[in-house]
Amino acid sequence: MRAVVRRDKRLVCDEIAELQPAEGQVLVKTLACGICGSDLHALHHMEHMIDLSRRAGGADNGFDPSADTVFGHEFCAEILDHGPGSSKALKAGTRVVSVPITLTAGGGETLGFSNRLPGGFAERMLLSEALVLAVPNGLATEHAALTEPFAVGLHAVAKARMDENSVCLVVGCGPVGLAVIAALKAQGRGPVIGADFSPRRRTAAEKLGADIVVDPAKESPHERWEALGVPKARSAQQVVRMMGGSFGRPVIFECVGAPGVLQALIEAAPAGAQIVVAGVCMETDRIEPSIAVTKEIELSFVLGYTSEEFAQTLRHIAEGEIDVSGLVTGRVGLDGVASAFTALADPEAHVKILVEPTG
Amino acid sequence: MRAVVRRDKRLVCDEIAELQPAEGQVLVKTLACGICGSDLHALHHMEHMIDLSRRAGGADNGFDPSADTVFGHEFCAEILDHGPGSSKALKAGTRVVSVPITLTAGGGETLGFSNRLPGGFAERMLLSEALVLAVPNGLATEHAALTEPFAVGLHAVAKARMDENSVCLVVGCGPVGLAVIAALKAQGRGPVIGADFSPRRRTAAEKLGADIVVDPAKESPHERWEALGVPKARSAQQVVRMMGGSFGRPVIFECVGAPGVLQALIEAAPAGAQIVVAGVCMETDRIEPSIAVTKEIELSFVLGYTSEEFAQTLRHIAEGEIDVSGLVTGRVGLDGVASAFTALADPEAHVKILVEPTG
Repeated sequence: MRAVVRRDKRLVCDEIAELQPAEGQVLVKTLACGICGSDLHALHHMEHMIDLSRRAGGADNGFDPSADTVFGHEFCAEILDHGPGSSKALKAGTRVVSVPITLTAGGGETLGFSNRLPGGFAERMLLSEALVLAVPNGLATEHAALTEPFAVGLHAVAKARMDENSVCLVVGCGPVGLAVIAALKAQGRGPVIGADFSPRRRTAAEKLGADIVVDPAKESPHERWEALGVPKARSAQQVVRMMGGSFGRPVIFECVGAPGVLQALIEAAPAGAQIVVAGVCMETDRIEPSIAVTKEIELSFVLGYTSEEFAQTLRHIAEGEIDVSGLVTGRVGLDGVASAFTALADPEAHVKILVEPTG
Repeated sequence: MRAVVRRDKRLVCDEIAELQPAEGQVLVKTLACGICGSDLHALHHMEHMIDLSRRAGGADNGFDPSADTVFGHEFCAEILDHGPGSSKALKAGTRVVSVPITLTAGGGETLGFSNRLPGGFAERMLLSEALVLAVPNGLATEHAALTEPFAVGLHAVAKARMDENSVCLVVGCGPVGLAVIAALKAQGRGPVIGADFSPRRRTAAEKLGADIVVDPAKESPHERWEALGVPKARSAQQVVRMMGGSFGRPVIFECVGAPGVLQALIEAAPAGAQIVVAGVCMETDRIEPSIAVTKEIELSFVLGYTSEEFAQTLRHIAEGEIDVSGLVTGRVGLDGVASAFTALADPEAHVKILVEPTG
């Protein structure tokens, strides 16, 4: 079958081996698979990513970043066949999504970052019957394929300790920031400020429910705290509380993942803020701890989502609590993947590009 | 009256102006005042500390670090006289402690870091009648003077999100680390691991209730997690939970405050750990955010304490829930303060030195 293979840090279309579902597995046809920012980074820097992950004690099941890899972990697929001993609870023809993990006799394989199993930039995949979720009737394939990136936002929000008056600032409105905004608004949180240099991303943030959008080139989003009732200094916070007043805990979602952003947020944040770090900065970064100490800042680093959060996100999308229409801004076949990676470097050009391997 | 004055980055004994209590204030005789690590740092680096504090939005009431300052914020004192309009709820002769803030017509002055009012390295001070707490009968002055540093530990513990099975690691058993250990044990937490290179500090940690003490020169304290039931990798944690097992959330208290410690802890900590940063690193520090992301580490920077925590700590000490006996390892008069600052550079020489300005 055909797939886009990462080989020598390039993406090439090639034939790869056909798949046979083992016990507990289903063979699926890939209908659509989003390109993630981590795919863009991994194309050139996967060796560094794997090294960092190993240093963090991550289980990678012997993954060799120098060997062939088929990316793609944000997919919607259709069941073609079942492995031996299957319950066949979901029949052939059913559209499904899944967390990008497939259980094998040798352990769990992370789809999209595996040498043994292809991810979603291939015509077919092997998924675990126990992990697939049927796409509810009527939900478009392109919207179901957004379950994975939006689950990242729900997880980040679950790690935030908000109160009912919390003011939230989302820094960076790429796919992660947009998913955070959507999860906040699905829970009725607000006000939510979205900040991004890109007009296209600010428009997407507004569409997903951001109450205020700010272009940081024109105005610091941190200028808004006090008008929204959040005193910036600890001493001012104490005065408000001594007077019997209250204000919502400020929560900042860092969805950029570049060096320097954390320190800029530590310096600009109101005292007592929680910074949920959902952006993944792969480089060494500098911070000034004493400023974080003086403000009693909390940095909560988050990653991924749970199975429950993934399932809840699918429901949010299916029931319209998260309106993902308009976010898919491009579609390519397998032979268009390499150029789509290039196009995504420009934040103005696209929000999300879907790969349709069999389209 | 006599005081130790910081002048041109040196400590000199000098005569300073007598004090008159204003409305709401009490004049007190300083009985004992501990030397804090922040005093040692401020002697040479106060300009930098104030610059950092201002960048963090701290209120300093116009403090000029180049002008004369009398340090000392960990004190026990005796009421001599009351300002106009006083309730005199506590009579002259009463021994008191207080958070080191004095309310004045011009705002709050931070005792020990003020040009307008002397801290505890002076024969007398002005305190706010509304903030002083009577030392309970029978509590030794030298133990009451430890309320302030031990309140720092209670505050750090209050910011930790532990469950009933949490395993706690306290990195650095200087005064801050010891206060954290004492607060943890006063709440019945455990197991608590204390780690310090100094045998004297490890002994003090054990006396305050640390269940395990580790010399990091001989063994990484992080070797202990798994024996205490805390899986280090996220994947192992998931397996434990899938099997219906549970384990206490790992909480690490960073009580060193030197560059490099945070990153070392991020690398060594179990996945899901909270690191409560009570040490104050005054320099720029480097971290690798991606490792913190992969492990979903939480960094909670903390400072100081609330009035309630200060009062609760006084009760803990008075009621013997925190046994501070043996922690005062030196006593000096005002003319011994400068040499005591030098002696405290050696962690083996002392735990806490008290200044007795009128002793």
